[in-house]
Amino acid sequence: MRIDIISIFPEYFAPLDVSLIGKARERGTLDVRLHQLRDWANDVHRTVDDTPYGGGPGMVMKPEPWGAAIDSLLADGSPRMVVPTPSGRPFTQELAQELAAEEWLLFCCGRYEGIDSRVMAEYGSRLRVDEVSIGDYVLAGGEVAVLVMAEAIGRLLPGVLGNACSVVDDSFAPGAMQNLLEGPVFTKPPVWRSHEVPPVLMSGNHGKVARWRRDEALRRTLSVRPELLASLDPATLDKHDRRLLDELSFRVGSEDVAN
Amino acid sequence: MRIDIISIFPEYFAPLDVSLIGKARERGTLDVRLHQLRDWANDVHRTVDDTPYGGGPGMVMKPEPWGAAIDSLLADGSPRMVVPTPSGRPFTQELAQELAAEEWLLFCCGRYEGIDSRVMAEYGSRLRVDEVSIGDYVLAGGEVAVLVMAEAIGRLLPGVLGNACSVVDDSFAPGAMQNLLEGPVFTKPPVWRSHEVPPVLMSGNHGKVARWRRDEALRRTLSVRPELLASLDPATLDKHDRRLLDELSFRVGSEDVAN
Repeated sequence: MRIDIISIFPEYFAPLDVSLIGKARERGTLDVRLHQLRDWANDVHRTVDDTPYGGGPGMVMKPEPWGAAIDSLLADGSPRMVVPTPSGRPFTQELAQELAAEEWLLFCCGRYEGIDSRVMAEYGSRLRVDEVSIGDYVLAGGEVAVLVMAEAIGRLLPGVLGNACSVVDDSFAPGAMQNLLEGPVFTKPPVWRSHEVPPVLMSGNHGKVARWRRDEALRRTLSVRPELLASLDPATLDKHDRRLLDELSFRVGSEDVAN
Repeated sequence: MRIDIISIFPEYFAPLDVSLIGKARERGTLDVRLHQLRDWANDVHRTVDDTPYGGGPGMVMKPEPWGAAIDSLLADGSPRMVVPTPSGRPFTQELAQELAAEEWLLFCCGRYEGIDSRVMAEYGSRLRVDEVSIGDYVLAGGEVAVLVMAEAIGRLLPGVLGNACSVVDDSFAPGAMQNLLEGPVFTKPPVWRSHEVPPVLMSGNHGKVARWRRDEALRRTLSVRPELLASLDPATLDKHDRRLLDELSFRVGSEDVAN
C-alpha cells in the first residue's frame, strides 16, 4: 500500500519509523511518502493560511497550496483522499478495514480552523474523498489523527502482524466478541503483590476459560459502554449470556440504558 | 503540568517536540518525562511480556516491570494515572478538560494484548486510575492514543493556544454550538477554480453570517452525525433552528434517527 501525507509538520510522522509500521515500511509492504505543504505556497513567506471569510477567530488554510500539492500527486493516478476533521464521519474499525483494502491513500492534514472547503469540493468530483473524525475531542491539527489511522490501517495489511489470530480477537474486530469489550488479562506470576490470577484461567478447562472470558466481556461492556450492548444483535447472545445479563438487570433488546 | 509517560517505545513521542505542545514544553508550561519500561525489567533480555493465563494468541505485559516503574515515580507524589485501552471509557472533550485541570498525569502505554490487569487493581486503590479509549478501532499500542490525549489536553493549558477564542468555537467545546459539527470554512480568493465563496460570508452582515454558520452546522450534523442532534437539549434550539430541522424532516426531541 502507498500512503501519501501532506502536512505543514512532516516531521510529526517520525512514529511511522517505529514498531510494526516501521517494519512494514522496511519490508516494502507500506510505502509512506511525506510532503511539506509549504513547498507549494507561492510567496516568499510560504504562507498557507489566511483569515476566514465572514470573520471570527483563527485562520483557514488557503486552497491554492492544497490544490498545487494534490495535483502534483495525481500525475501518478487516483488515490483515495482522507481528510481528518472533527466535523467528519467517525473513524471505526469497519472504515479501517475498508481503507486497508485500498492500494493508495492520500491524507491531507488540516491545521487552524481547517482547510478551505472548496478543496474537498474540487477533489470530491474527481476522487473518493472522506472527511473523517477519530473521536469527539479537539486536537491541534490533523497530524495525530493521521498517525492513528495509519496505525489502525497498517496493522491490518497482510503480513504486518506476526500472529494473524490477534486481529480476530480484538475488541471491535468482527467476530464472536463483536461489540463486546475485552475483559481483564493476566500473565505470570500466579500471585503478584497479593493479587491472585482467577483460578479458572489456570484450570486448563478451555470451555470454562472461554465462558469466563465472555462473562467478563459482558460485565465490562455493561459497566463501561452499555450502548454497545444495547446495539448488539440479540441473536448473538446464548442462554448463558441472557441469564448473566438478566442477573445484572440488563434487558436484552431494550435501549433503556443507551443514551 | 507534569506528564510522565511509560512505554517500550519512548522514541514514539518525538511529535511532542513539535508545534504548540513543543512550544509549551520549551516555555515550561508542560513538563513531559519519558520512561523506558524495559529499564525496570529484571532479566538480561529486558522482557516485559509473557503468555496469557488461560491461553490464546498474543502476549500480556508482565506486572513486575510496571510495578517497579510506577513505584519509582510515586516517590514524587500521587499522579492521576491514565491507561489507554480499547476496553476503556471513551475519551471526550469533557474528559480532556477534566484532565487538563490536573497537576500531574501518568500515562501507561500497553502493547500486545494489554497490561496484566492486577497493575490497574494495585494502583487503583492508591491513585485515581482511568482506563480510557480514544475510539472504536484497534491500534498497535497505547502510544498513539497517548499522543492524542496529550495534544487534546495540552492545547487547553493556559497560554498554549495564542487565541483563547479558538477553544470556545471548536466542535465539541461547551458553548453555543455544543453538540453541533462546524460547517464549511473559506478564505481568499473569492473564486478558486470556479468555486465561489458563499456571498453571505462577504456581506459584512454579522447577524446573517452567524445564522448561515448555524444553519450549515445543523445541516452538517444532521447529515454526518444525526445521533448528536438527537441528544441535543431542545431548549438550545431557537425558532429558526426548528424551522430548518423541520424542512430537513428531523423531528426535534425524537430519537428516531439515532441508533
